[in-house]
Amino acid sequence: MTSEFEIIRRYLLPATRHTVLAGGDDAALLRPSQGQELAVSTDMLVEGVHFLPDTDPVRLGHKSLAVNLSDLAAMGAMPRWAFLALSIPAGDDAWVEAFARGFLRLAGDFDVDLAGGDTTRGPRNICVTVVGEVPAGTALRRSGARVGDDVWLSGATGEAAFGLLVSRGDRAATAGDAHRGRDRLECPAPRVHLGLALRGLATAAIDVSDGLLADLGHVCAASGVAARLQWCRLPHSSALDGLSSDDRRRLVLAGGDDYELVFTAAAASRHDVPAAARQAGTRVARIGTILPGSGVTVADGTGRPISLGGAGFDHFG
Amino acid sequence: MTSEFEIIRRYLLPATRHTVLAGGDDAALLRPSQGQELAVSTDMLVEGVHFLPDTDPVRLGHKSLAVNLSDLAAMGAMPRWAFLALSIPAGDDAWVEAFARGFLRLAGDFDVDLAGGDTTRGPRNICVTVVGEVPAGTALRRSGARVGDDVWLSGATGEAAFGLLVSRGDRAATAGDAHRGRDRLECPAPRVHLGLALRGLATAAIDVSDGLLADLGHVCAASGVAARLQWCRLPHSSALDGLSSDDRRRLVLAGGDDYELVFTAAAASRHDVPAAARQAGTRVARIGTILPGSGVTVADGTGRPISLGGAGFDHFG
Repeated sequence: MTSEFEIIRRYLLPATRHTVLAGGDDAALLRPSQGQELAVSTDMLVEGVHFLPDTDPVRLGHKSLAVNLSDLAAMGAMPRWAFLALSIPAGDDAWVEAFARGFLRLAGDFDVDLAGGDTTRGPRNICVTVVGEVPAGTALRRSGARVGDDVWLSGATGEAAFGLLVSRGDRAATAGDAHRGRDRLECPAPRVHLGLALRGLATAAIDVSDGLLADLGHVCAASGVAARLQWCRLPHSSALDGLSSDDRRRLVLAGGDDYELVFTAAAASRHDVPAAARQAGTRVARIGTILPGSGVTVADGTGRPISLGGAGFDHFG
Repeated sequence: MTSEFEIIRRYLLPATRHTVLAGGDDAALLRPSQGQELAVSTDMLVEGVHFLPDTDPVRLGHKSLAVNLSDLAAMGAMPRWAFLALSIPAGDDAWVEAFARGFLRLAGDFDVDLAGGDTTRGPRNICVTVVGEVPAGTALRRSGARVGDDVWLSGATGEAAFGLLVSRGDRAATAGDAHRGRDRLECPAPRVHLGLALRGLATAAIDVSDGLLADLGHVCAASGVAARLQWCRLPHSSALDGLSSDDRRRLVLAGGDDYELVFTAAAASRHDVPAAARQAGTRVARIGTILPGSGVTVADGTGRPISLGGAGFDHFG
């Protein structure tokens, strides 16, 4: 029994509220509410691939839970339980303590029980599984977009990718812009409340992790439709104003790591969507329309399609 | 989209039976049966720590699910869903295909849906989360052992540890014994049916992964009791007959990796337990008694305590 295990155990046990039995047995016992379906998402984060050895462990703890909560948000599910499996090298006590702090602070913000997990020696690897509840039949899927629906986006995209460029030294920025970009990159805010507010309102939803076009493309493919976005309707941070028009487009359309929600809703919901978003404390913008066909296009102010330069997006992906 | 993802996807989608929505969305959707609690267990297996680079990937796929199903068995839960997160180096297609084959064959044997997961590049790391169902209030916990209960064990312990010694070249063995030891080590059979049969019958249960004494010790600690085992009642494989008496005791009592169930039941259930086990197709042996106090002791044929040599067990742990 190493001290890392003790640290995990110390944090594990007092934190649970929806859990019959957490830690210290062969399995955790959860009691789902009646009439609910369970939404389950798993993500694995590998050092050197998803984060750098010197990434602030408090922020990494936050992010490793946030990206999973973002998946539940995109399903309209209420997050309830999390399971954390960690592989860590020997002598990593301080790192684990800081990681757990970031993880558990976010868990507390959303009333999520850390109900179980595993800790082992090895190269740093973080595997988080989250379980949420959603009333049967009301989950937001990718496959529900219909021709004529509006396309909506929460917040703005591109700032996390900008933060990555700045922290790599690939772009200059004011201290304030650099700081905000890094915050967006390292401490994403999962749109849990918005996802809940969109039940019965959104026809399809996905969270933006790979980039707006790529993720909206998944919705279009699953729904058998096309989407056309209006460039002038796409919100972006003022931090991106100093970039060339091409670079700005790349960040906003293909930047990735935003963890905003892009979703569709019937045109008849055009007033209800912003009202629901306001109640959830999140800004949304109506950015386009669902059309027959396939794929995602972006139109400029005159309605002409913007050329997106194909492979040029890859290194922001 | 790499071919590893395609392999996972190809296997993922057709395999589900209890799942509303598997793969291909932000989260899987499960519909638990009414009145059930969910038992959830997570294990992370790291190359170089839990398995060697040249471990047969088909067997590793089996084992990575089996150890989790064993946890559910020890709770008396019916396994339903599995989630698989894999970190794999580039060019590992054949390995993944073989791994998935072993994993999915065992999943099929127990009607478990592989409902979701994640695949990423990195050092080989396998994180499996399983979800099972158990009628509310009937889960087998570690904390229910009472003074006067019998202690029972399924199968026999020590053979997996013997297999490890032989495969390391630390012990000689006949081809047949070596083969069986390796099978026990690499392809453990989770005692799922026995766990289900013990609901309402066993007062406490745990699966033997760290060694019989260590794991029964967890039951005693959680229940606030002691256990005394009769050495002559402990079954062991004939493969162990060639060992010294000390080595045999070490393997049987502290060998680990057996994935048998050790459990307690009221003395009044002394006839019902073997009958339930027979129906589950598993042999069980009554190996001891629960007493007041703490810790686990082992008595020889004359009732005298066997000295277990303390730290001597460590390298079998």
